[in-house]
Amino acid sequence: MALVDKTILDGIPTPDALRERPESELRAIADAVRAEMIDAVSVTGGHLGSGLGVVELTVALHHVFDTPSDRIVWDVGHQCYPHKILTGRRDRIRTLRQGGGLSGFTKRSESEYDPFGAAHSSTSISAALGMAVGRDLEEAERKANGEEPGKRRNMIAVIGDGSMSAGMAYEAMNNAGALHSRLIVILNDNEMSIAPPVGAMSAYLARLASGDTYRSIRETAKQLGKLLPKRLYERAVRAEEYARSLVVGGGTMFEEMGFYYVGPVDGHNLDHLLPVLKNVRDSEQGPILLHVVTQKGKGYGPAEASADKYHGVVKFDVVSGVQAKAKPNAPSYTAVFGQSLIKAADADPKVVAITAAMPGGTGIDLFGKAHPDKTFDVGIAEQHAVTFAAGLATEGYKPFVAIYSTFLQRGYDQVVHDVAIQNLPVRFAMDRAGLVGADGATHAGAFDLAYLCCLPNFVVMAAADEAELVHMVATCHAHDSGPIALRYPRGEGVGTEMPEQGEVLAIGRGRVIRRPAKARVALLTLGTRLGEALKAADELEKAGIAVTVADARFAKPLDEDLILDLAGTHEVLVTVEEGSTGGFGAMVLHLLSAKGALDAGTVRVRTMTLPDSFQDHDKPEKMYAEAGLDAGGIIATVKAALPTRKGSGEAEVVSLGRRR
Amino acid sequence: MALVDKTILDGIPTPDALRERPESELRAIADAVRAEMIDAVSVTGGHLGSGLGVVELTVALHHVFDTPSDRIVWDVGHQCYPHKILTGRRDRIRTLRQGGGLSGFTKRSESEYDPFGAAHSSTSISAALGMAVGRDLEEAERKANGEEPGKRRNMIAVIGDGSMSAGMAYEAMNNAGALHSRLIVILNDNEMSIAPPVGAMSAYLARLASGDTYRSIRETAKQLGKLLPKRLYERAVRAEEYARSLVVGGGTMFEEMGFYYVGPVDGHNLDHLLPVLKNVRDSEQGPILLHVVTQKGKGYGPAEASADKYHGVVKFDVVSGVQAKAKPNAPSYTAVFGQSLIKAADADPKVVAITAAMPGGTGIDLFGKAHPDKTFDVGIAEQHAVTFAAGLATEGYKPFVAIYSTFLQRGYDQVVHDVAIQNLPVRFAMDRAGLVGADGATHAGAFDLAYLCCLPNFVVMAAADEAELVHMVATCHAHDSGPIALRYPRGEGVGTEMPEQGEVLAIGRGRVIRRPAKARVALLTLGTRLGEALKAADELEKAGIAVTVADARFAKPLDEDLILDLAGTHEVLVTVEEGSTGGFGAMVLHLLSAKGALDAGTVRVRTMTLPDSFQDHDKPEKMYAEAGLDAGGIIATVKAALPTRKGSGEAEVVSLGRRR
Repeated sequence: MALVDKTILDGIPTPDALRERPESELRAIADAVRAEMIDAVSVTGGHLGSGLGVVELTVALHHVFDTPSDRIVWDVGHQCYPHKILTGRRDRIRTLRQGGGLSGFTKRSESEYDPFGAAHSSTSISAALGMAVGRDLEEAERKANGEEPGKRRNMIAVIGDGSMSAGMAYEAMNNAGALHSRLIVILNDNEMSIAPPVGAMSAYLARLASGDTYRSIRETAKQLGKLLPKRLYERAVRAEEYARSLVVGGGTMFEEMGFYYVGPVDGHNLDHLLPVLKNVRDSEQGPILLHVVTQKGKGYGPAEASADKYHGVVKFDVVSGVQAKAKPNAPSYTAVFGQSLIKAADADPKVVAITAAMPGGTGIDLFGKAHPDKTFDVGIAEQHAVTFAAGLATEGYKPFVAIYSTFLQRGYDQVVHDVAIQNLPVRFAMDRAGLVGADGATHAGAFDLAYLCCLPNFVVMAAADEAELVHMVATCHAHDSGPIALRYPRGEGVGTEMPEQGEVLAIGRGRVIRRPAKARVALLTLGTRLGEALKAADELEKAGIAVTVADARFAKPLDEDLILDLAGTHEVLVTVEEGSTGGFGAMVLHLLSAKGALDAGTVRVRTMTLPDSFQDHDKPEKMYAEAGLDAGGIIATVKAALPTRKGSGEAEVVSLGRRR
Repeated sequence: MALVDKTILDGIPTPDALRERPESELRAIADAVRAEMIDAVSVTGGHLGSGLGVVELTVALHHVFDTPSDRIVWDVGHQCYPHKILTGRRDRIRTLRQGGGLSGFTKRSESEYDPFGAAHSSTSISAALGMAVGRDLEEAERKANGEEPGKRRNMIAVIGDGSMSAGMAYEAMNNAGALHSRLIVILNDNEMSIAPPVGAMSAYLARLASGDTYRSIRETAKQLGKLLPKRLYERAVRAEEYARSLVVGGGTMFEEMGFYYVGPVDGHNLDHLLPVLKNVRDSEQGPILLHVVTQKGKGYGPAEASADKYHGVVKFDVVSGVQAKAKPNAPSYTAVFGQSLIKAADADPKVVAITAAMPGGTGIDLFGKAHPDKTFDVGIAEQHAVTFAAGLATEGYKPFVAIYSTFLQRGYDQVVHDVAIQNLPVRFAMDRAGLVGADGATHAGAFDLAYLCCLPNFVVMAAADEAELVHMVATCHAHDSGPIALRYPRGEGVGTEMPEQGEVLAIGRGRVIRRPAKARVALLTLGTRLGEALKAADELEKAGIAVTVADARFAKPLDEDLILDLAGTHEVLVTVEEGSTGGFGAMVLHLLSAKGALDAGTVRVRTMTLPDSFQDHDKPEKMYAEAGLDAGGIIATVKAALPTRKGSGEAEVVSLGRRR
């Protein structure tokens, strides 16, 4: 790293300046971008491998294309750090993923060079196709109005091979192939997304990228041509012409989808990339797929040598590559889930696990080592994952779909249509429920309670700590009469003592954690806000307010007895959850209003949820404080709700109660 | 029809009996099934064209395969009437889609011959793959336990070409191609789903089905072989072997996806179908794709001659094919939407419309005639539809995604991630919100309020009648600062007077319909339950109870002033919506509790929603009655909630109010 001159970047504040540089300088610029990125991520942590793989591609794209008028849509967006360095954000690059700093993904509000934000995969082709059609419509409008043609603009989606396994990418390709709009899709093929990609498409890409067959068939065809009688030769040429894609090899599948296929091209060789990109830019072809082969982690030894190519890292030492991983205080929820599921499968051959390309993030990597035959990584394919699990359930298996809360949104219709309506016992283990810190709004698991509690037949649980998670995995395992979902947050547990064996919980039963005599206030939590509720209760008791604390465990079905009891015996009842409105608190309000428990004005109910806004990335504690979902927020809510005692407040309540 | 002997079916109560019949009888059996189906649907209405297209395929499948031990998963399921006739449901076939009768789709609870229910498209491959893997795991278990192998079982998905445009089908193919499990996918290619299919995949299938290229290339290759020197010949053979799919043509794309491709086969010719199905059944190949070409509406003249092949019909006369379409009393919501959108586009070149293969069902067929260049049918591809619209929005266009409420579930993550988080002005026109009658639970639009109201940045509206729909389309058009969704039900409007021009409504403002002096009760409706609320109010007034009726118009943002005013000035406030819990009523409860409006016990609030169960198909009126969402249900809710006046009830309230 020491030999790289990063000062060359000082003269390139924006892509305009980059475009003024001769091609001969681009190698040095790429080296500087790479060094700058490694240095920045060594300080901030974040996504490293993906960005390293596209340094040359990023430099070449901004050199060849007229950004931001030309639109580059980075799929997923975790490879965008070089892009950020080159598009006016170098001065803030060491604020990546820090509170108030740059997002770890592309973000429209951050820069005009980010025409479309991302974080979930496989959206880029749809978005870029929308932009391309918008451009075409605008041209048509201009023409209809007798105006001069506008500037010739290019819409470019850059998508990884892993993202190509998602149905959404296929839907977009299918539509693009039919629309014939001028769209450029750059397939960044590094044979690696977060985990090694799976599925037939990735095998196909590997065959394409090897290139051998491509060459030998073409050479054979040439030689054949010389040997044939004229009549047969012409016939072969005609057939070859129609079936160019079939016979010449190459990107058959993409050409059948209506794309003009170009590649594979070495994505680290600027001498190859630049002329190809210029050709693609100047082509009048309908949609073009440019197949670029890159290496994840390229140019940084420790990343290249690592199995995960430093996909996501914490702070690290640049020279050694050693990451400063802090010793955890408690096992992560993810690991506890994985280990609990292993135990379930040890005892029951019907337990199977499904992940949509997130084995590491969901603990299915652990499970897969213990039970490889029962482990199914279906690729980035959440829709399929859910219905595949439903199919397994019909055959008597006990599928656990291990998935981030936010990614289950991708399979929502399948949850409704294939699981809930058919009442099939599919288990959903939803990791990253609630706020997620540095990954920000796109990865927050905010909505699962709202979008699942409304579904008939569903059981919805949330673990208050890692021991509860163990019990809830056992409960999921035992619950074989219908669908059940379990949510738990990102990160470490609270360090509670772990049970030897998970206990099967009674469905729809909560637990009272503490209930002092003469409690005026009841805090009813769902999930890991329990800890903050207990803190709040301690503080309130110091102020002379006795507080009952209960853990609902279930958002659906509700523990009606418990909730009605709490409402009937306290002056204030506050629900607390790490989710949006429309979830647990809403279900409690529906219950209380239906049962008439609010009619008499004997209890003041407040629901604490995530705010009705998308919270930017920050440290989790800060985000919870901002959301009001920490002890301080709970105390404030209780104090604001609590009737003034033995004074005018009480009188006021009574007088209101007999208004008429 | 008269010449067909349907009595042959009397001897075939189940597929077991069918399998005992000689192949020579199957033609007559197929003819009888077709006649029986036409006759039944002429009485019940329903899906006709799709079933007619698969009569021979259905007979052949049940003859060749050992159902129900072998599993046939019909994609979408609207082609399953012949299957129902052959699987023990012939005696009830004239109850199709009637209350208490057979479902119009496959349904697990209805028959062991329906291993997986459907209605939404493109789920069959995922489900059948799950079943295939379950079977394989069971075999492995057996082997590990030293047991004899189990019965050899086949898992078969039957999927139409239209359904192949959905990403979910691709995700499943991609996974199946990698898993190598023994799975049979029958591609039922009739070049027609509900509307003519669109997209590159359907063009590809058309090329395959034409077959010409396939033959000429193969023939050419054969002839070439004879002419070549040995060395070159061998090289060509080697290349051909690896690249069989590339060079021979045929189902290249499917073979690249890891499938063994067989076809195309004439799906109406039993002499072709039977031997191919037997081969496929007995093959040990990994996944097989059998490409069957059929004709939608086959064997019934009026259907074959019709543009939509009698996809969905009402009762009709068998001889003439004339459908007994009743003269509507009022325009359908769908048509009013389509016409309103045309007006918007007439005035504004930025208005564009997007449908996911449902132009007729959403009114986009009308729009498309008026503004073909602004109309985009993206195929069965809801995920792409949403993000494609988001891309258009970033370029300054005003996209309307016209979609059934239930199908928007397919694009939920895109709604969250690409539209809501980026606050892009995409308009969602959600048809079929609420209960839908004969199509049953799978098509009900029950959850959109719950899954949208929880999203920051979203505006969510519901039209109370067709005139309101006109205003709300204008409001969507004008609202360019973020996403907005509009819901309206299936069927005809109420016959209200239509405005010349839509008015732009104030965002987040409801309207009071009537407010008598001394009203004790307020009914606050969202959407078309307004009519029933007015009826209920009339009845209650007759009983001496004055009732305010208000139309919330917006589920988000709420009209806080209106709601707090209603809650503050009535003894009972009832919200009424055609949606699940967690939606509008929940938002009202969140508001009232947060504002302390329930604290004093001065108002009793009840939320009326769809029940927490999936309602079977029936006449809409019956379904609403069952749900309690008609005038009778509203009256009952009001009466149960209303405090007894000037008597013990009032005293009770007060005593409860000062409990401590």
